Amino acid sequence: MDYITAKFAKLGVDNAPGQEGLQKQEELPLQGDPIPGTPVDFSHGDVDAHKPIPGSLETFVEGYVVGGGHQAYTEYRGKGAIRQYLAEKLAQFSGAPVNPDSELILTPGTQGALFLAMGSLIGRGDKVAIIEPDYFANRKLVEFFDGELVPVPIRWTETERYSGLDLQALEEAFQSGVKLFLYSNPNNPTGVIYSPQEVAAIGRLAKKYSVAVIADELYSRQLFDKALPYTHLRALPERPDTLITIIGPSKTESLSGFRLGAAYGSADIITRMEKLQAIVSLRTSGYCQSAYLNWFSEPQGWLEDRVADHKAIRDDLLKVVSKYPGCWARPTEGGSYIFLQLPQLKVTLNQFVKLCRVQASVTVTPGTEFGPQFTSWVRLNFSQDHQAAVEGVDRICQMAQRYRA
Amino acid sequence: MDYITAKFAKLGVDNAPGQEGLQKQEELPLQGDPIPGTPVDFSHGDVDAHKPIPGSLETFVEGYVVGGGHQAYTEYRGKGAIRQYLAEKLAQFSGAPVNPDSELILTPGTQGALFLAMGSLIGRGDKVAIIEPDYFANRKLVEFFDGELVPVPIRWTETERYSGLDLQALEEAFQSGVKLFLYSNPNNPTGVIYSPQEVAAIGRLAKKYSVAVIADELYSRQLFDKALPYTHLRALPERPDTLITIIGPSKTESLSGFRLGAAYGSADIITRMEKLQAIVSLRTSGYCQSAYLNWFSEPQGWLEDRVADHKAIRDDLLKVVSKYPGCWARPTEGGSYIFLQLPQLKVTLNQFVKLCRVQASVTVTPGTEFGPQFTSWVRLNFSQDHQAAVEGVDRICQMAQRYRA
Repeated sequence: MDYITAKFAKLGVDNAPGQEGLQKQEELPLQGDPIPGTPVDFSHGDVDAHKPIPGSLETFVEGYVVGGGHQAYTEYRGKGAIRQYLAEKLAQFSGAPVNPDSELILTPGTQGALFLAMGSLIGRGDKVAIIEPDYFANRKLVEFFDGELVPVPIRWTETERYSGLDLQALEEAFQSGVKLFLYSNPNNPTGVIYSPQEVAAIGRLAKKYSVAVIADELYSRQLFDKALPYTHLRALPERPDTLITIIGPSKTESLSGFRLGAAYGSADIITRMEKLQAIVSLRTSGYCQSAYLNWFSEPQGWLEDRVADHKAIRDDLLKVVSKYPGCWARPTEGGSYIFLQLPQLKVTLNQFVKLCRVQASVTVTPGTEFGPQFTSWVRLNFSQDHQAAVEGVDRICQMAQRYRA
Repeated sequence: MDYITAKFAKLGVDNAPGQEGLQKQEELPLQGDPIPGTPVDFSHGDVDAHKPIPGSLETFVEGYVVGGGHQAYTEYRGKGAIRQYLAEKLAQFSGAPVNPDSELILTPGTQGALFLAMGSLIGRGDKVAIIEPDYFANRKLVEFFDGELVPVPIRWTETERYSGLDLQALEEAFQSGVKLFLYSNPNNPTGVIYSPQEVAAIGRLAKKYSVAVIADELYSRQLFDKALPYTHLRALPERPDTLITIIGPSKTESLSGFRLGAAYGSADIITRMEKLQAIVSLRTSGYCQSAYLNWFSEPQGWLEDRVADHKAIRDDLLKVVSKYPGCWARPTEGGSYIFLQLPQLKVTLNQFVKLCRVQASVTVTPGTEFGPQFTSWVRLNFSQDHQAAVEGVDRICQMAQRYRA
């Protein structure tokens, strides 16, 4: 097998959220009858249950009609006036200034930001430290850019607050010559956030060992507990020399259909990202860029309500989970995920995930997408219709009992 | 300089269309007064002068309102119903069947299609044959994916019809172990199309030497001379085993602001492209995907009128060019470009391009973006307001006289 064939053989997509239809049919060890209920796709959020920021469509239409060609053809890094607007909002949000001309790029979704940032920072053979568990595309991107994965664990199951980041493992990784460290905060899939001490340690160590950092803060506007402070690495006194923060309005704000994201930080890396954008897809859809103007300008109380709605769903899901022996999840501190631990099963994780779809009309993402060791975990995006989500989780837990070893 | 720094140092973007604002200020050898006139940006088309397909905005809005979450979250390769629609249209257009499930992917612009196709086909160190001159991103993509460029010339200045493809150079390139061949038809920037014999030779040689081919047919709906047959490689009896054809509605149809493209062909490569899409930007904006439904379903006569309008602009531009000694361009056979040869200048090409912007309010793309040897050429996208374009070209030719060696 040649180099490129081998590379793509490794690069999986069938278990990625929303791609389940691509999976090959296989004989499943079916047991019992189907469990009826409203189908729930926990692989991603339901933007019909939690609608986009009000006015987004209107802003899009205005951009199309009034902006015309100027809206269609923006600079590759995004329209100047929109960068101006967003730089101010992001500076205020993250607690440190952002230069709209040199330190910000608009990207096709936060995925686009992540791809461009990693493509701009990973040289062939470079060691890249990632958290386990963390967002599945992180691993794939390191492999695609011919980097070498250096996993660093969080011990979130052994603590009640914050991530339980293994700081010794982090320092050892950095000592081993890691060039880039990447972490999501709140963490995907566990929903834990990093403590001020943990983030400060990341900053201090990255500075000490000259490690570049990508901070994925996609879910940082959706935090459930005011008593738990959220720390933006970029606002700390001790921070890495090279730091890119990424965020987007696809999740909490439900604008995923527009594909909008943003990356901000070190100007030299933003420049590289734009060069890469120029050969990847030119720019974030010019017309869609208008909808950035709704982000961080939501109607009074809208964001608070959205977060409260999700907290209420989270609480009810956890109540369901706690009723079933062998099922467990740590309460989500931020974001829309719960990472659900299952009892030991007599089927494989992939079989269980398929059985859930076939017999219980629920789609979940296997834990192994987030690290090979998470063979008894599944991830659920609970940004769903409240009642349907509660019933869906109940069915998953019933299935776990049915297929228990 | 480390590997990744060197890579991005090579990857230029400042001369790319629309990016001119990024260029550093430099002392220019100014001569004479400014030439007044309506500013024209010939680096890309003017979608205000040539508006998007009627109904595109309405289709978008309907997709947003009616489609909701199903429109926002499509499979990474694009929404099934839209692939179904488009596969039929593309099969009819190109003269060979397209399986909507396995042989088509919707991409963020044709640039997205090109990036995904090249990323799926170029292994590190692979030789890639490209035409000179041809679309500037081709060269950059080969370099980004660590391939090795093998240029093959077209001798379009020495012939009155078709491209003048150097078939011997092509065969020698293929014999030397080229893995991938990439060409745009109509050619960007010259606007020539390949003859049936030339395309047949590409198919025969690619088959013989097992070379994969990417056929960039972005402008293939905008042909000016019915007497010159256009040949789709994919419809020929002798064609490469691996063939991807790319196209999109950003140019002739002016839908660039939505960022829509398509790649169709070998199913195994389409699968790779989707895997790559999953880590690049997930999918083409779900909401924007609706606008694909207007493409190939334009109102009666709309496409014919658009092509006729552009032919009329082309004819008038060429009349202007022919008045100025040392200025020359071959009549465009397809697409919206003229590749304008300038007389020998006493300033560098990059200086001339800047002088045109500063003194004549016209933006053009330097020929060196299309091959290092094109130091006395500039590319113009003439999809502009008719009168403004005529006057703009006149100013460029005046400038060429002023700065003649």
